[in-house]
Amino acid sequence: MTEYSLHEDPASGNCYKIRLVAAYLGIPLQRRRYDIQRGETRTPAFLTEVNAGGRIPVLQIDARFLPESNAAWAYLAHGSALIPIDRFDHADMLRWLFWERHSHESYIATLRFWRHYLGEAALSPAQTALMPAKQAACEAALALIRGYLTTRDWLAADRPTLADLVLYAYTHLAGESGFDLAARPAVARWLTRVAAMPGHIRFDD
Amino acid sequence: MTEYSLHEDPASGNCYKIRLVAAYLGIPLQRRRYDIQRGETRTPAFLTEVNAGGRIPVLQIDARFLPESNAAWAYLAHGSALIPIDRFDHADMLRWLFWERHSHESYIATLRFWRHYLGEAALSPAQTALMPAKQAACEAALALIRGYLTTRDWLAADRPTLADLVLYAYTHLAGESGFDLAARPAVARWLTRVAAMPGHIRFDD
Repeated sequence: MTEYSLHEDPASGNCYKIRLVAAYLGIPLQRRRYDIQRGETRTPAFLTEVNAGGRIPVLQIDARFLPESNAAWAYLAHGSALIPIDRFDHADMLRWLFWERHSHESYIATLRFWRHYLGEAALSPAQTALMPAKQAACEAALALIRGYLTTRDWLAADRPTLADLVLYAYTHLAGESGFDLAARPAVARWLTRVAAMPGHIRFDD
Repeated sequence: MTEYSLHEDPASGNCYKIRLVAAYLGIPLQRRRYDIQRGETRTPAFLTEVNAGGRIPVLQIDARFLPESNAAWAYLAHGSALIPIDRFDHADMLRWLFWERHSHESYIATLRFWRHYLGEAALSPAQTALMPAKQAACEAALALIRGYLTTRDWLAADRPTLADLVLYAYTHLAGESGFDLAARPAVARWLTRVAAMPGHIRFDD
């Protein structure tokens, strides 16, 4: 039987995405923990054996290593009901997943790291200078989801897909990034729907 | 028969990705041109009819609209030999595609816009301050591809896939971003291989 190990930092929302998808699918994952802030994913051993890119998460499938959170969930969910078969629905799901990586996670995860882990007082002048642009981009991303979910229950294909699980990860932590979801009720209701899916695990489970 | 229209800016490497994939597959695309710098993708009509996110490219499939370049090529290449069927190869291809969007295109395309279109003298102080970090991140991205291609001909699955076509787009324009590919011969040779694939079109075709 295939053994799956997740090389991860438990504080990372990107790693949580994979745990969430695996839990929903009932796939057990062994967890190999690293502390990004202590440089544990930049050691020569990690770069040689796990990921030359020096990043986590990495999904290990027996002796093979698959970097990038998005490749990991694609592997785990292969052939499952989380991935639509219909050509348009499939592409539409990917649309949300690429959008998350480029226009959502890149802002909301950075703001969470700065505000929740470093603290605004500890930011460099360059980080402080970037804050307004990150804030505006994140507000735009949340507005886009909110607008979309005002008339729909799920992001793609009119039913739960990988897009919902993956977008859930950082969106449900928006409070730690400095955003109040009570002011965005369509988003809050969608998060509640995702959290009610069978197999759901919490971020700190 | 399905009609495809590409809502695009011809100067955008992201739009070229879709033209490149469609050409390789022999799928005709009608081209609807917009000038991003003149705000033509932020008009009320565009936001209502084409993409609420205000971005191009958008692939129009008869009367349906699919934003995000990565969703567009996924739709076009559905069921083709450009997408591996094997579970690991498929996920590995997606790994490169998500990596491109997050850790490659976000740097190399910005540097191209700043250096080739705006010109360094026209940059704002904030943009100038960001330049060293963008430069370093782009060098790291090119180093990662170079290292990988030193022992392989193609990025995923040991044969040409969407990953090669999509990564080709901005990588082959690296000169306009300020990078010399002659100093990275493994990358240059890979670009030559991609450009020799049947159906290839150039950026300005």
